[in-house]
This record gives sequence, structure tokens and C-alpha cells, in this order.
Amino acid sequence: MFWKGLFAGTVGTEAPAGVAEHEVLITEWTTPKGERLPIYFSTTREIDVYALEALCDAVGWAKRPLRKVRKALACSFLVGSLWLEKQPQRRLIGFARATSDHAFNATIWDVVIHPEFQGKGLGKALMRQMIRELRQQEISNITLFADPHVVSFYEELGFHADPEGIKGMFWYPS
Amino acid sequence: MFWKGLFAGTVGTEAPAGVAEHEVLITEWTTPKGERLPIYFSTTREIDVYALEALCDAVGWAKRPLRKVRKALACSFLVGSLWLEKQPQRRLIGFARATSDHAFNATIWDVVIHPEFQGKGLGKALMRQMIRELRQQEISNITLFADPHVVSFYEELGFHADPEGIKGMFWYPS
Repeated sequence: MFWKGLFAGTVGTEAPAGVAEHEVLITEWTTPKGERLPIYFSTTREIDVYALEALCDAVGWAKRPLRKVRKALACSFLVGSLWLEKQPQRRLIGFARATSDHAFNATIWDVVIHPEFQGKGLGKALMRQMIRELRQQEISNITLFADPHVVSFYEELGFHADPEGIKGMFWYPS
Repeated sequence: MFWKGLFAGTVGTEAPAGVAEHEVLITEWTTPKGERLPIYFSTTREIDVYALEALCDAVGWAKRPLRKVRKALACSFLVGSLWLEKQPQRRLIGFARATSDHAFNATIWDVVIHPEFQGKGLGKALMRQMIRELRQQEISNITLFADPHVVSFYEELGFHADPEGIKGMFWYPS
């Protein structure tokens, strides 16, 4: 049981109801009203596509057909999510997923933290969990495509841009 | 039936024995002895991992555990291969595969043409078939990571390096 906080104090020795044993306590979050609520990382919780698209909408991403979002979730190798727990409810506040060949390579897509929860290290904590999970699955080549303004964020996590001159490339119809 | 050559003459109206209808005739190849043999692209032929690793070895790639190669093939979204047909035999002379979320993104890996068959446009023909297949599956974002010496090869196929400043990044253990 990953029962200690990763960059904050622990919240006790018992998981709240509905939290699975393998889920990771990331931190305690203090609300504007002074409540302290745990935030968990999970790779197994079902993602409501409406909640996910609301999260993506909150950071200004373009809307996507829900049929395709469902398929992408089902066919991703790893789906990681961050949840603010306020029993009996939980709120999806962060998300990332990875495609993979299940053997050598993984590519991480759609990394998002809700704006209310940004700037407190949750993005890094989410990514560290993604990397840990992929490494546990013996994936040696973890890759992603980073927008210019988040390159330094990923560098702090151990990602290198264009190592040995390798270029990320995208195809466009001519 | 894709029954015409893509950058060469056709070889008739009947597929050779063992060639499936959906397979694509890429070109005719003239051997040193003057024999003309068809080269086919397939997405469905079973790949012998020993033949694949021999192909990768021929271009100097590092050896990989066959167990992981088998898993990577099974878990790739698209596996494309080029075959030189000399009835009743066929020889694997080119290969590429793609990981994907089956919805939005695909990443192409392990693009290889046997050295004997390089420099004649087969790499481009293979990649065009890969792109065509991914587009038919409604994959809008086709990506790859290119070594410096093949960036211009992929540019000629419609790939752009670092579009809008997006950087390809690889994770390294610290």
C-alpha cells in the first residue's frame, strides 16, 4: 500500500471508503474553507468522458467527439488520473494517458491539471506516477511531444528534448 | 483490389498464389540475374520474429529480446511489411509499425528497409502505405521520432519537425 504522501504529510493509516489499496495518496489539499482533503492518483478508476472533457475544456483544449475519446481511453496502455476526495464524492482534477506497444515504447498524451489546482506540484506528481507505472511495466523508452511552454516542466522530470538530434515529427496532408 | 503498381508498371491482373486481395503491389524488382519479381505491402501477414530481427540486424540495430519483440508486434496498432515474392517463397525486405490509441494519435516506429533494397524508393512507398492505412482508420495525428539523417526523408513524405515549436522528448533515469 502506497500509504504515505509523496510531497506532503500522511493522512492516517486507513484509506477512505472507495479508495483502492493500490491507489497512491499524492497530497492533502487545503480548501478555501480550510478543509483538508486527500488527492489520490489512480490507474484503474473509470473515467467519465463528460468529466474528462470538462477538465480539458477548463484548460482551453478543443472539444473532441466523445465516441473517439471513449475509444482512446479503452485503447491507451495507461490511463492515470488525479482525484480530490470529499466523501462520498470525488472530483477528477488531473489526467494523463500513454499509448504503447506494451514492450519497448510509450508515448504520453493529454497531460492536464485543472486550473484551480495548478502551480502546486500536482502536474509533476502525476507525471512521476506515470513514469513509475511505465517503468514497472518494463517500458524503457518513455516519450512525449511537448508544447514550447512546457518543455522546461518536462525537463525537470528527466525528459530531454531532441536527444542525439532526434526530431519529433508530425504528418500533415499536402 | 489495389492491383496497380504505385511507381512501376503492373504485373498482370492475377495475384500470385498466397497474396491476399487487400495486399498492395508496390513495384517489380529486377534481380541481378534479370528476373522480375513483385514486391508487396501487407498489414496482415504474420511476421517471423527471427526474420524481423535479421532485417534489423542487417541495418545495424541492436538485438532485442524476442519475447519483447513478439509482444510489441502483437500490441502495435499497425504492422506494415514489404515482401519480395519468388514463388513459392517470400522474403521480408521492409518493415514499419505504429502504436496508437485507435482514435486520435499514432506513432510510427522501427522503419527499416533491407540494405540490398535501399535507394529505390521502397522506404517512401512503405511509409505512404502506413500513412494511408492510418488515415483510413481516422487517425488524425500521425507522429514519429526521426534520427537526424532521416529528417529530410520524412519531410519529403509530409512530416514536419517541431511544428509550432512542439518538441519530441525522451525520458532518462536520473
